[in-house]
Amino acid sequence: MIVIATDFGIDGPYLGQMIAAIYAQNNQIPVVTLFSDLPTYDIKASAYLLEPHINFFQQGTVFLCVVDPGVGGSRLPIVVKADGRWFVGPDNGLFAMIARRAKLVSYWVISWLPDQLSASFHGRDLFAPIAAELALSGVNDKHMHAVEQVTSDPSWPEDLSEVVYADRYGNAITGIRALTLDNSDRLIVNGTEISSARTFSEVAVGELFWYENSNGLAEIAVNKGSAVAALEIELGAPVVRVLGT
Amino acid sequence: MIVIATDFGIDGPYLGQMIAAIYAQNNQIPVVTLFSDLPTYDIKASAYLLEPHINFFQQGTVFLCVVDPGVGGSRLPIVVKADGRWFVGPDNGLFAMIARRAKLVSYWVISWLPDQLSASFHGRDLFAPIAAELALSGVNDKHMHAVEQVTSDPSWPEDLSEVVYADRYGNAITGIRALTLDNSDRLIVNGTEISSARTFSEVAVGELFWYENSNGLAEIAVNKGSAVAALEIELGAPVVRVLGT
Amino acid sequence: MIVIATDFGIDGPYLGQMIAAIYAQNNQIPVVTLFSDLPTYDIKASAYLLEPHINFFQQGTVFLCVVDPGVGGSRLPIVVKADGRWFVGPDNGLFAMIARRAKLVSYWVISWLPDQLSASFHGRDLFAPIAAELALSGVNDKHMHAVEQVTSDPSWPEDLSEVVYADRYGNAITGIRALTLDNSDRLIVNGTEISSARTFSEVAVGELFWYENSNGLAEIAVNKGSAVAALEIELGAPVVRVLGT
Repeated sequence: MIVIATDFGIDGPYLGQMIAAIYAQNNQIPVVTLFSDLPTYDIKASAYLLEPHINFFQQGTVFLCVVDPGVGGSRLPIVVKADGRWFVGPDNGLFAMIARRAKLVSYWVISWLPDQLSASFHGRDLFAPIAAELALSGVNDKHMHAVEQVTSDPSWPEDLSEVVYADRYGNAITGIRALTLDNSDRLIVNGTEISSARTFSEVAVGELFWYENSNGLAEIAVNKGSAVAALEIELGAPVVRVLGT
Repeated sequence: MIVIATDFGIDGPYLGQMIAAIYAQNNQIPVVTLFSDLPTYDIKASAYLLEPHINFFQQGTVFLCVVDPGVGGSRLPIVVKADGRWFVGPDNGLFAMIARRAKLVSYWVISWLPDQLSASFHGRDLFAPIAAELALSGVNDKHMHAVEQVTSDPSWPEDLSEVVYADRYGNAITGIRALTLDNSDRLIVNGTEISSARTFSEVAVGELFWYENSNGLAEIAVNKGSAVAALEIELGAPVVRVLGT
Repeated sequence: MIVIATDFGIDGPYLGQMIAAIYAQNNQIPVVTLFSDLPTYDIKASAYLLEPHINFFQQGTVFLCVVDPGVGGSRLPIVVKADGRWFVGPDNGLFAMIARRAKLVSYWVISWLPDQLSASFHGRDLFAPIAAELALSGVNDKHMHAVEQVTSDPSWPEDLSEVVYADRYGNAITGIRALTLDNSDRLIVNGTEISSARTFSEVAVGELFWYENSNGLAEIAVNKGSAVAALEIELGAPVVRVLGT
């Protein structure tokens, strides 16, 4: 399976062109779009949002991931293998949390160049063909070479105390893994202190709560309402933990 | 064919994870996304919107439908077979109009539990694998058991006199089947009385009309314009029928 | 490969129903959605936007394209073959630029009628089955007949000096092919004069520039920002070329 995660938006031409580039190499393997709305240009938030979502997919899955404001510049194209899953994309920190949290990680720099490489769309021209090739036949030594290390920022925290995603319901996903919190902990966002619940139906309609979402992240929600609207949350809003007693 | 209808939104992680869960069981069968924007949390409006859209699909189609504000609570997971089509989702009324309008209906309660069941995402963890299994091999008696009846609300009307969907053009779809109206009938929405036409090109540019849409519902539209903007329509706006003379 | 380009919007029922209509005829061939947000009702802008995007796809690709405000009226359904690629849709000018810029063009009028043809959704009922048939087995003489010429407007310019698309980043795509411009040329949009760069990473964060995008169109962008917001650009905004010196 090839899984796509980008900040391209879903209905314009970019996603379709990238999928078509995969099919041009390999139309036997299922292609699934996970995210088309990763935080725009925001490599750090995307890195913390992406990692918890990969655990759902089985080993051998190839992730084609593009948040790439530096496309056309000097950042390298890379392949990461982390605990049996493959990742293809720009070497700009997008895979930093995946690499940090994995037990077993390998890296390659992509040396292959397509016949035509646009300056601004490496997702379509470079990364998609490599992802298709990886899914079909694994590493081709003529197209990439192993390296010891890739870009990461050691100053990044273990968990990101920010809102990194808002969904259609107005739920606000944070970059904090719920396993680092206690159920008695509260979270403060935009001045409001929020207690936890297990799920939506445990709280009254209109009530605000945080919970461990289905991917293991702390998420702020309102039962049958919008936490984003209630707290006027913007992406990047800081989230403060208050220890439970 | 597996057809997906949810209120998840289309570009976040939920749709992709649900499709991946299908492919994990069965990647031979085509998967089509019908709705990702069913009226949020609104089971009743979704029930009236969904039913007229199923007729387009042939017998044997499996519909995976999730509008499920009570996920994680006590509502049961069910399978409905109605006139040869399958429906998988929560037993909260979402399939009430499908069952009521079908000639032949059977029900099952899903007893199977996955190894990992998140509290908030049964679409991915429970309903998707069952939908994939139904598409592959039909009812597995070890995973579900037949029941006599499922949740429905006898007070719900035959047709819902509300706006239940607004599309990208600003057309407002009602929960009223056009076959219950006469071409000479008018509809009143937000104080404006609207006459019928057969199609867009029959009226002048900018003119408001209602017509029987391609799924048989009464729909309010403006030729090359937005009825939603013209009448300031919100989802749930009441629609009043005025008998033609 | 069947490639879909429409103004339907992506998350409502129309795209899914059209894809399902393809699969009902032919579920062996990959289906890719290129655009679901072509300029609404705007045949001319869509014609200039669409043409540069087709070059990415190989010969034999079938494009199913619908921007069709006149559906249900007298405009004819057609098939165009242009330089080895197929196009199915309404004869309203949508394919005018594809035909004009191609070396070798043939036309057919579709005479086939489905058992059930809705007045308002020929994309699903008429064009999708024909596209599936073309992808499977080419022209069926019983379903269409060759004609000499189809609708085009000779007054349309070679390139359209307007903004024809805005993407999720706030980049504004024009209907001007970059090959008709010089790198020293500036573009004026909403009173602001804009110089060119090769790609985003060549200019400072927040800086406005125009560049040749990955499909060959002149595109107005801001590095890590939104040109649409910075210049308050609306679709259809005029673009003026200032000759470089």
